[in-house]
Amino acid sequence: MSSPASPRPPLHVGVLTGGGDCPGLNAVIRAVTLCLTQELGARVTGIERGFWGLMERRSRPLTRADVHHIVHEGGTILGTHNKANPFQWTPAGGADCSAQALAYARELGLDALVVIGGDGSMSIAHRLERLGLPVVGVPKTIDNDLMHTDRTFGFDSAVAVVAHALERLETTARSHGRIMILETMGRYAGWIALEGGLAGGADVIVIPELPYDIEAIALACRQRYSQQGYALISIAEGAKPQGGEMTVREYLPDSPDPLRLGGIGEVLRSQLMPLVDCDIRTTQLGHLQRGGSPTPFDRVLATRLGHYAAELVKRREFGRMVVLQGDACHSVPLAQVADLNRTVPLQHPLLRAAHSMGIALGVADAAAS
Amino acid sequence: MSSPASPRPPLHVGVLTGGGDCPGLNAVIRAVTLCLTQELGARVTGIERGFWGLMERRSRPLTRADVHHIVHEGGTILGTHNKANPFQWTPAGGADCSAQALAYARELGLDALVVIGGDGSMSIAHRLERLGLPVVGVPKTIDNDLMHTDRTFGFDSAVAVVAHALERLETTARSHGRIMILETMGRYAGWIALEGGLAGGADVIVIPELPYDIEAIALACRQRYSQQGYALISIAEGAKPQGGEMTVREYLPDSPDPLRLGGIGEVLRSQLMPLVDCDIRTTQLGHLQRGGSPTPFDRVLATRLGHYAAELVKRREFGRMVVLQGDACHSVPLAQVADLNRTVPLQHPLLRAAHSMGIALGVADAAAS
Amino acid sequence: MSSPASPRPPLHVGVLTGGGDCPGLNAVIRAVTLCLTQELGARVTGIERGFWGLMERRSRPLTRADVHHIVHEGGTILGTHNKANPFQWTPAGGADCSAQALAYARELGLDALVVIGGDGSMSIAHRLERLGLPVVGVPKTIDNDLMHTDRTFGFDSAVAVVAHALERLETTARSHGRIMILETMGRYAGWIALEGGLAGGADVIVIPELPYDIEAIALACRQRYSQQGYALISIAEGAKPQGGEMTVREYLPDSPDPLRLGGIGEVLRSQLMPLVDCDIRTTQLGHLQRGGSPTPFDRVLATRLGHYAAELVKRREFGRMVVLQGDACHSVPLAQVADLNRTVPLQHPLLRAAHSMGIALGVADAAAS
Amino acid sequence: MSSPASPRPPLHVGVLTGGGDCPGLNAVIRAVTLCLTQELGARVTGIERGFWGLMERRSRPLTRADVHHIVHEGGTILGTHNKANPFQWTPAGGADCSAQALAYARELGLDALVVIGGDGSMSIAHRLERLGLPVVGVPKTIDNDLMHTDRTFGFDSAVAVVAHALERLETTARSHGRIMILETMGRYAGWIALEGGLAGGADVIVIPELPYDIEAIALACRQRYSQQGYALISIAEGAKPQGGEMTVREYLPDSPDPLRLGGIGEVLRSQLMPLVDCDIRTTQLGHLQRGGSPTPFDRVLATRLGHYAAELVKRREFGRMVVLQGDACHSVPLAQVADLNRTVPLQHPLLRAAHSMGIALGVADAAAS
Repeated sequence: MSSPASPRPPLHVGVLTGGGDCPGLNAVIRAVTLCLTQELGARVTGIERGFWGLMERRSRPLTRADVHHIVHEGGTILGTHNKANPFQWTPAGGADCSAQALAYARELGLDALVVIGGDGSMSIAHRLERLGLPVVGVPKTIDNDLMHTDRTFGFDSAVAVVAHALERLETTARSHGRIMILETMGRYAGWIALEGGLAGGADVIVIPELPYDIEAIALACRQRYSQQGYALISIAEGAKPQGGEMTVREYLPDSPDPLRLGGIGEVLRSQLMPLVDCDIRTTQLGHLQRGGSPTPFDRVLATRLGHYAAELVKRREFGRMVVLQGDACHSVPLAQVADLNRTVPLQHPLLRAAHSMGIALGVADAAAS
Repeated sequence: MSSPASPRPPLHVGVLTGGGDCPGLNAVIRAVTLCLTQELGARVTGIERGFWGLMERRSRPLTRADVHHIVHEGGTILGTHNKANPFQWTPAGGADCSAQALAYARELGLDALVVIGGDGSMSIAHRLERLGLPVVGVPKTIDNDLMHTDRTFGFDSAVAVVAHALERLETTARSHGRIMILETMGRYAGWIALEGGLAGGADVIVIPELPYDIEAIALACRQRYSQQGYALISIAEGAKPQGGEMTVREYLPDSPDPLRLGGIGEVLRSQLMPLVDCDIRTTQLGHLQRGGSPTPFDRVLATRLGHYAAELVKRREFGRMVVLQGDACHSVPLAQVADLNRTVPLQHPLLRAAHSMGIALGVADAAAS
Repeated sequence: MSSPASPRPPLHVGVLTGGGDCPGLNAVIRAVTLCLTQELGARVTGIERGFWGLMERRSRPLTRADVHHIVHEGGTILGTHNKANPFQWTPAGGADCSAQALAYARELGLDALVVIGGDGSMSIAHRLERLGLPVVGVPKTIDNDLMHTDRTFGFDSAVAVVAHALERLETTARSHGRIMILETMGRYAGWIALEGGLAGGADVIVIPELPYDIEAIALACRQRYSQQGYALISIAEGAKPQGGEMTVREYLPDSPDPLRLGGIGEVLRSQLMPLVDCDIRTTQLGHLQRGGSPTPFDRVLATRLGHYAAELVKRREFGRMVVLQGDACHSVPLAQVADLNRTVPLQHPLLRAAHSMGIALGVADAAAS
Repeated sequence: MSSPASPRPPLHVGVLTGGGDCPGLNAVIRAVTLCLTQELGARVTGIERGFWGLMERRSRPLTRADVHHIVHEGGTILGTHNKANPFQWTPAGGADCSAQALAYARELGLDALVVIGGDGSMSIAHRLERLGLPVVGVPKTIDNDLMHTDRTFGFDSAVAVVAHALERLETTARSHGRIMILETMGRYAGWIALEGGLAGGADVIVIPELPYDIEAIALACRQRYSQQGYALISIAEGAKPQGGEMTVREYLPDSPDPLRLGGIGEVLRSQLMPLVDCDIRTTQLGHLQRGGSPTPFDRVLATRLGHYAAELVKRREFGRMVVLQGDACHSVPLAQVADLNRTVPLQHPLLRAAHSMGIALGVADAAAS
């Protein structure tokens, strides 16, 4: 007969990180693991490389010793996988392998699974939940473009990388009398280009939400150039000119140096060159925005979300995703987390602030006011 | 009927920064100046060294050229003064010099004054307002302990300094098998020690709000030491033992080296030495927490507050202080900004998270749960 | 009659910065200005935007107040110009404007001119010297590839940017199981890719001095990938495959996405893709390597060189360029500063160290040993 | 005749780190381990916590997997011990335990031991060598004060911490109109205070090699204060006034707040207060100077030294310590590494540069010129 004090075995919880890496993932893993093991006495198992590990049966125990020192480390100690989807697993010919994934979870004896990931991972989590695996989601995107939550971890780190890059470029711009263009992440939402641009002193900020008028940008550049002797532009990779997307090839069909072609930053440069009489250079930040140690802000935010996820497990409130609203954590049903992007609203205070300060937003005045 | 061209002269607005310096002050000055000059066509005058400049008649014009590049600079380009109070001006023998201050404002022709400062500055601003000077306040404190506002600029920068200092100390702690104590700012509120400690991986966090039990701290240190081989402590300067404040002298009356005595970090060290069998070292961060370039987060926050202050001037809503609540800016009457500190509530999610994660808070278990 | 104490007027010295910007230029300007004004009581005049200012008659006085606080600032407060050559001034149709330049120097009353710049600037300085303008040169190149001097300021800062970028990329590489390629500066010499790669933990380092064998790189990548699960490559922009330069187009003639094409990093990626079975990503650091605050090492080095330049002026040893050899400053005749690059010798200790440590250098074993 | 295949077993080399921790130790461990294992096929064993591990029989194998990723990590993965001396082991009553240490080395089958440490460690290494243990030494001190070598790893990292701290303090000094004193490491040699002070823009630099005249410092402070409105002082912990050491107590016998007393920075502050009419604040950097990630410069230097140590092992040149002279590595006999400090020579170019630039060195003019 079992002793009265422990009628059931300790909780056993799985944790996985899915999708692209993001500063703060380790802080979430640490908070979830410590809360569950230290407070509840639960067992925690890390699933390796996201949903790939669930299908390929790869996991390892997570204890205090594995996580106590990782709050400041970039990436994820569990590894991740961009494309592993149990419902459509490519190496298996796009087949549905969800049964295998669930079987592995059962075999491990998981009472619950904490999924840290973006849109795609949440959607997979939701389907697994409906097939009987109790799931808690923690949202992850450096783009800050998730519905229901004010701020996602990783975003502050990406903004910091952009701001510091603009600071570096500013010294060159000023010394040489140049226009420097920085292309940031943000395919659908302009949060990184906007906050990074504001923090880094950009004179022009171009985001996907406001298709740009090249004449308006050129006007702003000429004005700043005559005032300051240089100008800085922060442009999101998903920005596009009014009237649709274009490519460098359309602007420079006879470019002698195709190797120098790049993304929208380079497009903007080729469009600006005939309109502005000074040297223009483009830098594409790329992967530098998602690697590296998270900012202390992101570590604290990730810790809060991880703690709240452990709380949901403790209260057995499954099928939900943790969110931050105002200064408090809540949760929303995974069912509500559609594949919708939270883009920058045109009336957002930061856009209004930028406009009031005379930072050009790439559109004729009326559009942004 | 008003004339079509310029019915009244452009607005003329003064700006001053009061109290201790704080990362982000220049970002506020920039936002206020750019919004007022670029959008409203107003004139802006910077008052030098806080209220001192108002009494000593020291000011200078602020234009686009003065502020466009200062978003990332620490300190304040206007200078500040810790003790300048027009109602009790020390060099003048504690006399009331407010009439002189108001006369200078009138003489300059100021339509409004934007005061960026802490508790003390807001209280002076409120009194000047009642004497007829239209005022808008912008709160400033790295301690994050102001009522009515969720987060103050400068705080994130201070937290970052603390977190990075703990990271540095961690390598020494681990290499030598030591306990390292970091004493942070925070006389009345433990926000910096708490968030900095969480972000920097502290094993023990001690804040003024929770008077500490030295036996509880020693227990936690011994436990972590046996598990990890070292321990990190984040303690706010205002922390105190249960039963009242003590000094190193009470613990080490015969210390041969009085020059090595310090603040509460050193007190804690002397208390811990007889209780823990390992080497213990203390570092006091001091002024390193308030100088230097603001984090990009603080630059964006300061920009938002500055923009909102300019909005209040534009709408002629005077006698109010800008606040951040949730994800939006609002304002509260200066009259309501009493000299009250916003300390860390004992039920705050971050305290609960720390407790759940097994981070010791320096009290017997029940107290923090 | 003048007093016996000061038979001649104080020395008047010009300073200019030419060529691309470089971290540490301001530290040189500061040291030269302070040494000349504080110790010798000389007058100092800053020529604006390099030799452009000499031709376009643009200069301003430099005093203690202008320079005392700029030691940590990136860029150059004097501005610079990439192409201004008095002997072949492009806007003037490639005409020889040296007479005008010399006339302006005479008109200013310059007793000497300190030229801070690279190969090109030194060659112009030498020609001006022969036409009668006393000149002292201070070498500047972030590439560290100047003859006669062991180390140039700006190089340490560029190495630091590369090393920190590799650290960031490493977290992504490890989390995703990827090969990450970082393309650094270095058209002719591989110093930045080599030291940056060593400091950033690169598994493969590819420099122009060692034309690479793609099979050797692929072999190293496969080996590291099987050992670590990822690999990091540092490649200088001037690196080239054995057998001559190639372009992405030759490897991926049908690339559907020409906008994603880049420099040699992208070429390497397209060559590696068929040879290595994992995801490969490229980042091109570009301008981020030359802007921004100099490292403290570069500030001290720049200060030493600036001080030594002032010493040469004081001793009236003109027509010479300051160099660092071992731990001491010396000078060499400008006539000897040919347009030769100091490339990485194949027997350099750092190459040997890399080879011994098992860091692949992109060549079959014999070549590097 | 020896057999063709493997005439003798692979080399087996021990590695230990002794004395205080220092940024770059892990880069040395990595280079030594990789060079020995990858190039020579040797076995490497890490001795834990310095000589303590040799006596307490604590060691572990070091392989590629243990070290490939640690180049940027602070501290030492092997741990260290400040006081472990086999010839006078305190816990054992100051007894000579060298026989046990040697027995353990023999038992492990070590062909050689690489000792990374300071003066004290080199002296122990020398005695072990004479007792028959083949030893190679690698010098370590953040103070840069070792004879025979131009530059030690860890020093550049400490200088960077000091320079960045001065930058932070400068914003506060300027905003408030204050004198800020920064106390740095350096008991006997002033290298850190000198280079850190030059790189951080100090107005006054005080080092142990030049006992200071408080009147000279006060004069410089008043002058800078009147010119700039603030002043920055960098002072080494071992600095002392002319005429001998003093304590705060001698200057402020009735200080109401003994807890605020500190080191020489605080002494200087109490001496300056009656002589300078402005606010003065002191910061003591302490342990922040030795922890944390090494600068890329230190990583490269440490890698070079580690590689050279492995070369010495390979060539069986034992009883020697690696040194850097000019731009090349050499070695000197351990017998010559006396307990002598390499202090800053009074004719050092950096002192002369500081003096020429008008940076006060705390002495009447003649002394430093």
